[in-house]
Amino acid sequence: MTFSNSAKLNKLLAAQQHGFSLAQDFYKDIDVYHTEINQIFLKHWLYAGHVSQIPNTGDYITFEFDTESVIIVRTAQGEVKAHMNVCRHRGSRICLEKSGSQKALTCPYHAWSYDLDGELISARNMPDDFVPSDNGLHKVNITLIGGLVFVCLSKDPPSIDSLQKELEQIVDIFGINSMKLAEQKSYRIPANWKLAVENYQECYHCANSHQEFAKIHAMAKPPKLFQKAKTDYCEANQNDPKFAELNHYFDLAEQGQEGFQYDRNPLIRGAQSGSLSGKPVAPLLGSLQNYDGGASELMVGPLSYFLIYDDHMIGYRFLPISVDECICVVSWFVNGSAVQGEDYQLDELTWLWNVTTLADKKIIMNNQKGVNSRFYQPGRLSEMETFQQSFLDWYLKALVK
Amino acid sequence: MTFSNSAKLNKLLAAQQHGFSLAQDFYKDIDVYHTEINQIFLKHWLYAGHVSQIPNTGDYITFEFDTESVIIVRTAQGEVKAHMNVCRHRGSRICLEKSGSQKALTCPYHAWSYDLDGELISARNMPDDFVPSDNGLHKVNITLIGGLVFVCLSKDPPSIDSLQKELEQIVDIFGINSMKLAEQKSYRIPANWKLAVENYQECYHCANSHQEFAKIHAMAKPPKLFQKAKTDYCEANQNDPKFAELNHYFDLAEQGQEGFQYDRNPLIRGAQSGSLSGKPVAPLLGSLQNYDGGASELMVGPLSYFLIYDDHMIGYRFLPISVDECICVVSWFVNGSAVQGEDYQLDELTWLWNVTTLADKKIIMNNQKGVNSRFYQPGRLSEMETFQQSFLDWYLKALVK
Amino acid sequence: MTFSNSAKLNKLLAAQQHGFSLAQDFYKDIDVYHTEINQIFLKHWLYAGHVSQIPNTGDYITFEFDTESVIIVRTAQGEVKAHMNVCRHRGSRICLEKSGSQKALTCPYHAWSYDLDGELISARNMPDDFVPSDNGLHKVNITLIGGLVFVCLSKDPPSIDSLQKELEQIVDIFGINSMKLAEQKSYRIPANWKLAVENYQECYHCANSHQEFAKIHAMAKPPKLFQKAKTDYCEANQNDPKFAELNHYFDLAEQGQEGFQYDRNPLIRGAQSGSLSGKPVAPLLGSLQNYDGGASELMVGPLSYFLIYDDHMIGYRFLPISVDECICVVSWFVNGSAVQGEDYQLDELTWLWNVTTLADKKIIMNNQKGVNSRFYQPGRLSEMETFQQSFLDWYLKALVK
Repeated sequence: MTFSNSAKLNKLLAAQQHGFSLAQDFYKDIDVYHTEINQIFLKHWLYAGHVSQIPNTGDYITFEFDTESVIIVRTAQGEVKAHMNVCRHRGSRICLEKSGSQKALTCPYHAWSYDLDGELISARNMPDDFVPSDNGLHKVNITLIGGLVFVCLSKDPPSIDSLQKELEQIVDIFGINSMKLAEQKSYRIPANWKLAVENYQECYHCANSHQEFAKIHAMAKPPKLFQKAKTDYCEANQNDPKFAELNHYFDLAEQGQEGFQYDRNPLIRGAQSGSLSGKPVAPLLGSLQNYDGGASELMVGPLSYFLIYDDHMIGYRFLPISVDECICVVSWFVNGSAVQGEDYQLDELTWLWNVTTLADKKIIMNNQKGVNSRFYQPGRLSEMETFQQSFLDWYLKALVK
Repeated sequence: MTFSNSAKLNKLLAAQQHGFSLAQDFYKDIDVYHTEINQIFLKHWLYAGHVSQIPNTGDYITFEFDTESVIIVRTAQGEVKAHMNVCRHRGSRICLEKSGSQKALTCPYHAWSYDLDGELISARNMPDDFVPSDNGLHKVNITLIGGLVFVCLSKDPPSIDSLQKELEQIVDIFGINSMKLAEQKSYRIPANWKLAVENYQECYHCANSHQEFAKIHAMAKPPKLFQKAKTDYCEANQNDPKFAELNHYFDLAEQGQEGFQYDRNPLIRGAQSGSLSGKPVAPLLGSLQNYDGGASELMVGPLSYFLIYDDHMIGYRFLPISVDECICVVSWFVNGSAVQGEDYQLDELTWLWNVTTLADKKIIMNNQKGVNSRFYQPGRLSEMETFQQSFLDWYLKALVK
Repeated sequence: MTFSNSAKLNKLLAAQQHGFSLAQDFYKDIDVYHTEINQIFLKHWLYAGHVSQIPNTGDYITFEFDTESVIIVRTAQGEVKAHMNVCRHRGSRICLEKSGSQKALTCPYHAWSYDLDGELISARNMPDDFVPSDNGLHKVNITLIGGLVFVCLSKDPPSIDSLQKELEQIVDIFGINSMKLAEQKSYRIPANWKLAVENYQECYHCANSHQEFAKIHAMAKPPKLFQKAKTDYCEANQNDPKFAELNHYFDLAEQGQEGFQYDRNPLIRGAQSGSLSGKPVAPLLGSLQNYDGGASELMVGPLSYFLIYDDHMIGYRFLPISVDECICVVSWFVNGSAVQGEDYQLDELTWLWNVTTLADKKIIMNNQKGVNSRFYQPGRLSEMETFQQSFLDWYLKALVK
C-alpha cells in the first residue's frame, strides 16, 4: 500500500472543501509530499530549458528538483536527449555544473564514460561478465515544444500530441523556436511548493503587493474592469490567431493528454511590454510587426508557465526541494537575433519580474509561517482565485489518480 | 488517543525518579515536545510584553513561540487585545515586525483588513454568501497584571483572580503599571527549553559560573549562609509589605488558578542594585524612597520570571522554537518617568544580565550536548536545586493533566 | 526487538548482491544508521589520538562522534585513561575544548569535580545519602598500540592481544611510540560515513581524481602494472620485517579479536615520500636508515587507517556526525625529535593529503547526491574495488552480529 491510497490521505481529502484553501497537512506532511513527487512531479512534463542553451554537440544543462538531477544534452546527431545524472557504477552525479560542454559524459569519480546518447563506452577493470550495454544512463523522456525542452521522468508520460499541434501557430507567431535565453535567475523560497504555485496563479494579490506589475497589467484590476478591458481588446482582434483561446488545462485536459492553455490579455492602456516604463525593452519577437498592447500566457503541463510580451518571453517553473522549500526559476527570452548591450539591456529586461518575484518570495514565506500555526484553517477563496481553484481541484485528484 | 496518555509517555513517567534530573527522552523526543506545547504552552498564561510598549491606538507587538504568533494591539477604545497572527483567508502572517503601528490589521498578501478588535472589515471580491463576521481573527485571551501583558492561547485559561488580588500591593509598591521597557534582548539557545528554564531556577551553578552575579546576590552563597542572610534581612522588615512571601507556585497553586510566587532576597552587603558596581543604575521604582539592599522575585505562571531591584525590573521568558531550540527574551524596565541618557544608561542597566545570560547560553548548550549522549543518565539533584525540583514535579504532572 | 533483527533490515540485507554497491537505504535510512552506531561504532576500537598529545599529568584530548564525546587524559600515575564526557549530575559536557590541561575534571556547570581517574572528588550540597563513589565518570575502555590511543565504548570490546603482538616489530621499526603529532585537520563531509570510508578503501578513482597522489603512488596504476611493481619491490626485500604482510582484516579477523592489516607498497620509481616533489619532508622515522621507495599501510579496527612513509605517518579516521554527515580527521606524525621549522615545514608535510582529502570531499558529496536519487541502483564493482568489497561483506554481517 502506498500513501496515495492510505487512510490518512483519504481522510485529508474527504475533509477538504471546494472553495477553500488547503488544510495544513497538505503543506507540511512528509507523506503528502512524497505522494506529490510520485503522482505529479514524476508523472508530468516539466519545463527544463530551451534549445538555444545547448546549440552544439556536447553542450548540456542540468535540471533538478527534490533529490533528482537530469542531464539534457545535444548529441552528435544534433538531437536533444535527457539522461538521469546518476552514474551506473556507484551513483555519483556526472555533470556537476548547471551547464557545460563535454565530448562524453564522464563520471568525475571513476571515469566511467558514457557517450552523449547515454551508452556506456568506457569502464576500466570491470569483471569479464560485466555487460556495458546494460549499464547505460537511465533515459528520460524528452520533447521539444517550439524549442522549449520538456522532460518527463515517468516511463509512461502523458501524450503531448494535441498540445504540439494546437500550439504550432502560436510557436510560429512568437518565434519561440528561434528565441534565445537572455537571463535566468533562481529564487529559493523556504515554503512548500504549492504556496509558490498558488501565488503565481492568482492576481487577487497583485493590486496590493505588486505596484510595478499593476502599472502594466490590466489583470491587477477588479474582475469586472479587467473583463471589460479584455473583451474590448479581444473582440477587436477576433480573427488574429495570436488571440486564440486554447484551454485544455487541469480538468479540461483530454484523457491521456498533458494539459495546456493559451490566452491573451490586455496590458494597461499605453503599455507595450513588461518593463519599468511600459516601453519595449527588446526587438519584436518572431513574425510580429507591431506592439498591440497585450501579452499572452501559455501554460504547459501543471507546473510551467510562460508570459509572452511582444518583445520578450518569460518562463517560470516551480519545483520542490523538500516539503518546506522550493525553487522558482525565472527565464527571460528574447528574439534570437537580438544582441545584448545593443538591442537589449539585461537590467531593463529583467527588472519587472525580478522585483515581482522577490516580493512574492517574501509573501510566500509569510504565508507558510501562518499556515504552520495550529490556528490556521482553510479559508474561503475569492472570485479572483478561480484559476488557483482549478489547480486545487486538479491537484486533489492527481494525488490519488 | 493523544501522546499525553500513550504507553510511551507512561513508561517514561513511571521510570522518572524524584530527586533526579529528567531522562533523556524528555529533552529530545518529538512526541514529548508536542505534548508540552499542548499541555503547557497552550494552556498557561505567558508573559508577552508591557502596556508601555503599545501606548497609542494601533500600536502592536507580536509574541511568538513554536509555530505560533500572536498580535497584541491597542484598540481604538484604548484596550489591549490579542489576536492570532494568521489571516483567515489563506493563512498569511499579518503583522510581520516585532512591533509597529497600524490603523487596521491589514494582511500584506490580499489586503484583507481587520479592525484592531480583530473583526474583518474589508475583503474584496468575495462570493455573495461569504460572511465577514464569521471571519474575524482568532481571539486570544489576554490579561494585564500591573501593566504586564499575559496571553493564554487556550479557550479555557486558568483563573488569575487570586493572583491579581494578592499581587496588587506589590504592583503598587514598585509601580509596575507605570514602568517603561528600556531594552529587550533575545537569546537563541540551541537546546531544549527545559534546560534553559532549569538553569534559571537554581543558583547551585551561580558561584561557579556567574562571578558577576555572585558579587551582587547573596543567593549564590552556600544554603546555610544564604538562609542566615535572608532571615536577618527579612526579620528586620517583617511588617513591610515589600517583604511579603506569597507562594502559590507549581503544586501549591490553588485548583484552577494560575500559579505565582513573590519573595524578597538580600543582596550582598553594600550592594543596592544588579549592576557592575552594585550601585543604582536608574531612579527608584514606584513609591520606593530608599535602597534597602534586596531584590524581589516574582513568578507568574510556569514560564515567566521577574527580578525586581529597587531601581529596575528584569523580565525573563523562555519559549520553545522546536524540540532542540529555545529563545530566552530578557526585558529591562525602569521607572516610567526616567529618561534614557539622563537618568540611566542602557549599557550600565543591561550589563549584569546580559553577561549572565550569555554565560548561561553557553552552559545550557553544553548541558544539551551531554544529555544527548547514550551515556547520560538522570543524576541526583543537590539541596540547592529544590526550586527546580518543584518545577519538575509540576511538569511531570502537567504532561498528563 | 531492535532494528538489527527487524524485518526491514532483513529485507534490505537479503536484497543486497555481492559485487555491487549498497542499496540506497544503507546510506539514508535513520534506522540503519542507529544500528551502525550500536553494532559498529560502539563495539569496535576507534583511533582517538597519540600519547604525544598528552605528555603531562592533566593533559587531555576529546574524541567525538555522533552524540558521543570521550575525554582521554593523562593521570597522576602517568597512565592514559578515557572517560565519557558527561557529568553524572545533570549531564553537562565537562571538557569543552579539543585539548587542554586540567588538574581535575571539573564540570563547568555546577563544579562537580572528578579526579583524572574519573572518581568524583567534590560535589557541594548533596543530600546525606548521596554516594560519591557511585558517581564517577563512566569509564571507557582504552588501549595503546605503539603510542596510538584507541578507545572502545563497549563494555566487552574485542581483544587486541594478537594485534598488539603481531604489530610489535612494525611499531618499533617506525618508532610509532615516540612519534609526535605535527598537525591535525578535520574535514566535515555532508555525506553518509560509508561513502567516505569506501572512497578511502579503493584506488580505482585515484588515476582520475588524484593526479597528485598518482605521481607518488604506484597503487594508482592499473592492477597488473601495480602488481608487477609490488612483486618486484617486495621480492627484493623478503626477509625485511618492514615488508611483512599481516592480514587479519574484516572477515579474516580471528574470532573475538579486533581486525587489522599491515602491508607495504611501492611508490612510483624515484619517489621517497608523499610530497609534492616526492622528496622527503621530514627526518627518517624510528630506526630507518634510508628511503627504500615504499610506504606501509596499517589498518587497526574497521575505521582507522595509517599510511606510513619513511619520513612521516598519516592517520585517518572516519566518523559519523549524523546519517548524512561525517567527519574525516587527518593527522600528520613525524619523528618525535624533529623540530618544526627546522626539520620539517607544516605546509610541505601536509600538502599531498590535504589536496587529496579536499578532492575526495567533493567526490563524496557528489556521490551522496547521486545515491539520493530514486534512479540510483547498486552498481557493479570493479576489480580495483576488492578491498572495499571486503569491507562491505564485513559491514553487512556486522549489522546483525
